Amino acid sequence: MCALIKQCEFIIANLHSNLYKTYNMPSISRKGIEMPESPIRKLVPYAEAAKKRGVSVFHLNIGQPDIKTPQVALDAVKNNTLETLAYARSEGSEEYRTKLAKYYVKNNIPVTADNLVITTGGSEALLFAMGSISDPGDEVIIPEPFYANYNGFATASGVTVVPVISKIENNFALPKIEEFEKLITSKTKAILICNPGNPTGYLYSEEEIEKLKKIVLKHDLFLIADEVYREFTYDGLTHTSVLSLDGLENNAIVVDSVSKRYSMCGARIGCIVSKNQEFIQTAIKFAQARLSPPTYALIASEAALDTPDSYFTDVKEEYVARRDTLISELEKIEGVTVANPKGAFYCVAQLPVKDSDHFAQWLLEDFNLNNETVMVAPASGFYSTPGEGKNQVRIAYVLNKLDLIRSVEILAAALKQYPN
Amino acid sequence: MCALIKQCEFIIANLHSNLYKTYNMPSISRKGIEMPESPIRKLVPYAEAAKKRGVSVFHLNIGQPDIKTPQVALDAVKNNTLETLAYARSEGSEEYRTKLAKYYVKNNIPVTADNLVITTGGSEALLFAMGSISDPGDEVIIPEPFYANYNGFATASGVTVVPVISKIENNFALPKIEEFEKLITSKTKAILICNPGNPTGYLYSEEEIEKLKKIVLKHDLFLIADEVYREFTYDGLTHTSVLSLDGLENNAIVVDSVSKRYSMCGARIGCIVSKNQEFIQTAIKFAQARLSPPTYALIASEAALDTPDSYFTDVKEEYVARRDTLISELEKIEGVTVANPKGAFYCVAQLPVKDSDHFAQWLLEDFNLNNETVMVAPASGFYSTPGEGKNQVRIAYVLNKLDLIRSVEILAAALKQYPN
Repeated sequence: MCALIKQCEFIIANLHSNLYKTYNMPSISRKGIEMPESPIRKLVPYAEAAKKRGVSVFHLNIGQPDIKTPQVALDAVKNNTLETLAYARSEGSEEYRTKLAKYYVKNNIPVTADNLVITTGGSEALLFAMGSISDPGDEVIIPEPFYANYNGFATASGVTVVPVISKIENNFALPKIEEFEKLITSKTKAILICNPGNPTGYLYSEEEIEKLKKIVLKHDLFLIADEVYREFTYDGLTHTSVLSLDGLENNAIVVDSVSKRYSMCGARIGCIVSKNQEFIQTAIKFAQARLSPPTYALIASEAALDTPDSYFTDVKEEYVARRDTLISELEKIEGVTVANPKGAFYCVAQLPVKDSDHFAQWLLEDFNLNNETVMVAPASGFYSTPGEGKNQVRIAYVLNKLDLIRSVEILAAALKQYPN
Repeated sequence: MCALIKQCEFIIANLHSNLYKTYNMPSISRKGIEMPESPIRKLVPYAEAAKKRGVSVFHLNIGQPDIKTPQVALDAVKNNTLETLAYARSEGSEEYRTKLAKYYVKNNIPVTADNLVITTGGSEALLFAMGSISDPGDEVIIPEPFYANYNGFATASGVTVVPVISKIENNFALPKIEEFEKLITSKTKAILICNPGNPTGYLYSEEEIEKLKKIVLKHDLFLIADEVYREFTYDGLTHTSVLSLDGLENNAIVVDSVSKRYSMCGARIGCIVSKNQEFIQTAIKFAQARLSPPTYALIASEAALDTPDSYFTDVKEEYVARRDTLISELEKIEGVTVANPKGAFYCVAQLPVKDSDHFAQWLLEDFNLNNETVMVAPASGFYSTPGEGKNQVRIAYVLNKLDLIRSVEILAAALKQYPN
């Protein structure tokens, strides 16, 4: 069914493409046509139009925290003495990788500088990882809902995302191992998880990671873990990295980023971590082709490693308070179900609406409460199974408590008024 | 023959991959195996070893100028007042794109902010352009020798590079149009040129660009021009952008970067420019998936647009002096042929050696003149036709005149001593 819909979409896209062709246009690629729009950013024009009409918009759609970047990182850039802004080493300088390896060791991830490739954001880390292990037509199994841009990177790499559904009723826990095994084919190259999860906020237990270990070893697969929210675990729970398990040395790949850890999303510095040297050497070739990560951001990221522990204690406390506020306010609204996140700073909420894409756009175009409205990310873009998540939205709790309370108040009023 | 060699390489790579397989390793992708090493960077470990032995290395291998970045750009970053280093807009802010469009208009390229997508370096601009117009198996025709990383981006995108040879005897002028036409198939999506050329330094005339216009219009192809060296034209010659020609609106794509223009290679800010809105909207989807270009570098790049014209006059004067010095010194060496560059800051030199890969490595490993040696880029990596360029190297004239004179002196002494 899913395949049939995809085929229809492709035929339509091709017709569209051929239509242009008759006007003597060179044609866009199939992958360019299939490339999804970001569910987090596609409604930006509607938000901008609302703002032009004088309506304030609370941005719950994007994981852009209002938390300050550590001063030590900001200062390092302000005090830099570069006269020529030169290329950095493709895989990152030995100094930075050595210092970064110490951060990992401290976090129970026993790696050395040679196990790291510095990338331009977690985005590029994912792209290099996918490119290094999969060819067009290969498959990667991902529990869904998943970070929407995995679809984008998969399309860019020609890789097919094979979703395995996790349910809001189970708080989006790891699907049963049998569900994974059913999906493994000769084309399967990896299982990809996000832990703690974006958009679900789910934190996989050590037991769940052990289950994944067994399955990837049995089938010779890579296990890619997007661990960019490593620090953001709540309620006394701790994070288990796929690189902390013995026996996964050849299989485990961690994708990482400074974006969320230090609230420096605009730096665009990430990292690939793996003990599989064949994989690392391949990723370095991708890194060489694009020359180097951004030099100023490397200065900020290396300095950020000196951020005092108190920064993280404060930030975590703030996120827990925001989460508690958001969840308790959301649960007051009739018809709303929300998964309680144990990590990251997102939650998925099920709303009493039929089509959250339409609802999210309506919030920006047709609704306001005393000239204020909210922007949320429709969840359909976080699924690759057509039709899934149509009554869900992702909410990022990246605003302060008062703004969150007001945002939910607006959402509640909107739901009452929404014609559905 | 070329295809046969590629097939053998693939079989060997697969054997290698399968060997690992027997040890229960998940396997690297075909594209990962085929991904070329950078000819510019692959010898870096030998250079580092030489330095550890106390040998100074003159770096003629990489287009990393010693020219200072404009003060206005450096100051903008030093004086920034950001407290949270946030994401930028995926395609670049409207302010920056508007200001950048004015730069293009001033350079006889009539575009608006909507024709621009800001990228993370020229590298990403090329990657998004290739991804937006071609699928695995599609073909792009490129005059060779060409910028080595085109091979890397093509491999990453699954695109086949179809080379059309330009000759050192003709100073690397545009190959005859019939040579292009012979190579066009139903899979051809674009012709890609670099103008002024890296590694050749060749500057295409308006007449040559007109010839390319005819052929892309006749066959409905894109014409991608890498114009990152636009400012670097010498001897009173001027640059012709593919976007300055009428009638190419749907076909022309310019790939650009701040790296060379403002000597800020480490910024990693580039740009895609096209009047084809279907193409631009597709490229924006690729841009959204990777979230945003680096924020600090955007601050530097926007400020760099206020660089006074005198900066470019001085820089150009300096490069002309360097070029003249380098070429006249090289021509003194017996057996050396060198193409006289009219733009950019590279030249290709033909040396009396059989294998310039071996020679370049030997320079670093086994040779020094009073504890000094030079690093050059073997030209074979700038060709995709196997066996081509084996007696050529690319030399970047990014060092001052005295260093260039000394470098050629070292090269001359090395050629006398080299066992060949």
